[in-house]
Amino acid sequence: MSAAAAPTQLDSTSETPLLRDDADGIATLTLNRPAARNALSLGLMAALQAELDAIRADRSVRAVILRGAGPAFCAGHDLKEMRAQPDRAFAEAVFRACSALMLAITQMPQPVIAQVHGIATAAGCQLVATCDLAVCTRDARFATPGVNIGLFCSTPMVALSRAVPRKAALEMLLLGEPIDATEAVRIGLVNRAVPESELEGTVRGMAMRIAAKAPRVLAIGKEAFAAQADLGLEDAYAYAAEVMTRNLMMADAAEGIDAFLQKREPRWEA
Amino acid sequence: MSAAAAPTQLDSTSETPLLRDDADGIATLTLNRPAARNALSLGLMAALQAELDAIRADRSVRAVILRGAGPAFCAGHDLKEMRAQPDRAFAEAVFRACSALMLAITQMPQPVIAQVHGIATAAGCQLVATCDLAVCTRDARFATPGVNIGLFCSTPMVALSRAVPRKAALEMLLLGEPIDATEAVRIGLVNRAVPESELEGTVRGMAMRIAAKAPRVLAIGKEAFAAQADLGLEDAYAYAAEVMTRNLMMADAAEGIDAFLQKREPRWEA
Amino acid sequence: MSAAAAPTQLDSTSETPLLRDDADGIATLTLNRPAARNALSLGLMAALQAELDAIRADRSVRAVILRGAGPAFCAGHDLKEMRAQPDRAFAEAVFRACSALMLAITQMPQPVIAQVHGIATAAGCQLVATCDLAVCTRDARFATPGVNIGLFCSTPMVALSRAVPRKAALEMLLLGEPIDATEAVRIGLVNRAVPESELEGTVRGMAMRIAAKAPRVLAIGKEAFAAQADLGLEDAYAYAAEVMTRNLMMADAAEGIDAFLQKREPRWEA
Repeated sequence: MSAAAAPTQLDSTSETPLLRDDADGIATLTLNRPAARNALSLGLMAALQAELDAIRADRSVRAVILRGAGPAFCAGHDLKEMRAQPDRAFAEAVFRACSALMLAITQMPQPVIAQVHGIATAAGCQLVATCDLAVCTRDARFATPGVNIGLFCSTPMVALSRAVPRKAALEMLLLGEPIDATEAVRIGLVNRAVPESELEGTVRGMAMRIAAKAPRVLAIGKEAFAAQADLGLEDAYAYAAEVMTRNLMMADAAEGIDAFLQKREPRWEA
Repeated sequence: MSAAAAPTQLDSTSETPLLRDDADGIATLTLNRPAARNALSLGLMAALQAELDAIRADRSVRAVILRGAGPAFCAGHDLKEMRAQPDRAFAEAVFRACSALMLAITQMPQPVIAQVHGIATAAGCQLVATCDLAVCTRDARFATPGVNIGLFCSTPMVALSRAVPRKAALEMLLLGEPIDATEAVRIGLVNRAVPESELEGTVRGMAMRIAAKAPRVLAIGKEAFAAQADLGLEDAYAYAAEVMTRNLMMADAAEGIDAFLQKREPRWEA
Repeated sequence: MSAAAAPTQLDSTSETPLLRDDADGIATLTLNRPAARNALSLGLMAALQAELDAIRADRSVRAVILRGAGPAFCAGHDLKEMRAQPDRAFAEAVFRACSALMLAITQMPQPVIAQVHGIATAAGCQLVATCDLAVCTRDARFATPGVNIGLFCSTPMVALSRAVPRKAALEMLLLGEPIDATEAVRIGLVNRAVPESELEGTVRGMAMRIAAKAPRVLAIGKEAFAAQADLGLEDAYAYAAEVMTRNLMMADAAEGIDAFLQKREPRWEA
């Protein structure tokens, strides 16, 4: 599944639906179905799940960038494929695969950054909402337009409604209309919007800053974030206090704090 | 309870505390106690609950607009009525009726849009927070001022704290001071603020765009939104994946996707 | 632990890690380890917990202001102390004490306002996120930088992720970089940012307005806010309706509503 191909070499006729390019401890995953605006076919979802599973176990990868080849980030599920196989078993497979994929992003130890240009719609918008961080171009647009085609964006709503305020989520879901990058920043769907020429650099810069942290510590933090989010306040504190106690007993914390007190750079274990 | 009366005929001496006007698949409910700034007397709450129950079962209604007659949207509970019947049974009846009303708005299949002008305070602010969408005039004001009269806005807080960030909610609740329309948009209490001359048109436009969607699909989406909001992430995805599978098996999805792929308008079943 | 010392008399050589100054029903707690940027040593946390416990039971205190002496609000835990006692028992004591402190702020009957200048980092940022309200200077900065020293801000994340949108919280936690006052207001971490010359006056004004409310009613509201936040919507309404019924039966509500209807100032019981 890995590919050395540089993004500029992406080809709309490619039969590889997902590209992976690793550098500097950062894995860049490129959705590569540009002619279909990177629609999440079952094949593309399987490829993405496989790469996430591989990265999850790969200690050399410290941050992940997710982006799309061609004119769009991702247009959601593959409607042609869905209509070609209109049985319940296929539908179930699609939505289970999609949900498993989103959970995998949230639950993997490495932070995942969405690098968004063009449109991110339906499950594509869900990917943006699900990634830990997201940066988009100033002309990017986001929508959960399933309601317009008789298929409410019910799984995207799970991620969207946890990322943005309730009325903003309901407006996107009930009206199915796109919002622009400024609004996406305002409601918290993306962290920031930048000129197109700065998109890759901004995302890579964030990924490199993250990749310079201790991987085990990032893993602790991501796991703790997801776990405490679903707990009541007292349970969340009991859990988080235990996590921090365990974290402080690790060599990374000893090294990190000593380096800070000695005003030097820390040296993390691999 | 239905009334053919056009809004312009509303009369402050009316004994009908709630008006209903249906057009284009949109039911407009007008709180009609303008002399009391549409305070939610037990009678008005009963009338509103009855209309919501009727609309819930009325497949010809595809969207609901909630607004107030006279100078204000809604000033909350009817304090005079409360003090005239200062027994626990009456208090219990008021707050149970109010909570049931708010749950009914959240749980009914049709989207409900608050059309807000003047003030929306206490349970009136709760109505705004509870409606799926809300649009207000630029001079509208919102408050949860119960703390100023010794009666903390504890039921409004349930809706408010789920609609806006925690510190914004606590500031409104603990200080009891009004916020303006700009701040209400900023914190997510309303979707947008418009000049007074555009209020009705903006809300009606949103309602009409919603009314053009497949009603069953809107119903699925509203139910799913409320259900998944109270679940942990994994449970929410398991639930939502099942909802989308079921949705994709419906005739509306087949028609909607086919229409989309064929670049034509969908024809929903009634 | 109480001190009559005015803030201007604070001394960086003081051995009293926490000062308390009461006036007008408002208790001002000043973190007083300025040379250590008010790092939360176990001693300071114990002193703060003791004062919060005392205030909790002190009906003469109606609002609490929390601030820091010297150049910063609070720089988080005391890293030197931590490294000097690198055993698990000490770590456990620190994070349990910190979590108990944060819960005490949330659970005490009086509103607590953070008055923030300089930096508020790690557990210092957690204090800001935990306080009911927060006001900062325009040059204040906030960060959860534990990831930079190998100790992820897992307990701060509990408060932070409940105060601000998910992606804003994750950006602070994963990158460990500071945000400025404008961004802190934007994401909801603080209620407002003011010029340094207005900080004390703004916070005192808010505290005095809160202190003019009925203390029992504020206590009901704070308790209800925390309790309902962890409930599903239906349970939250059942709980809140019961709370409001009980509140309406209190003398404060009778007096407050009568005063409102008679257009006079209410006279709360002590």
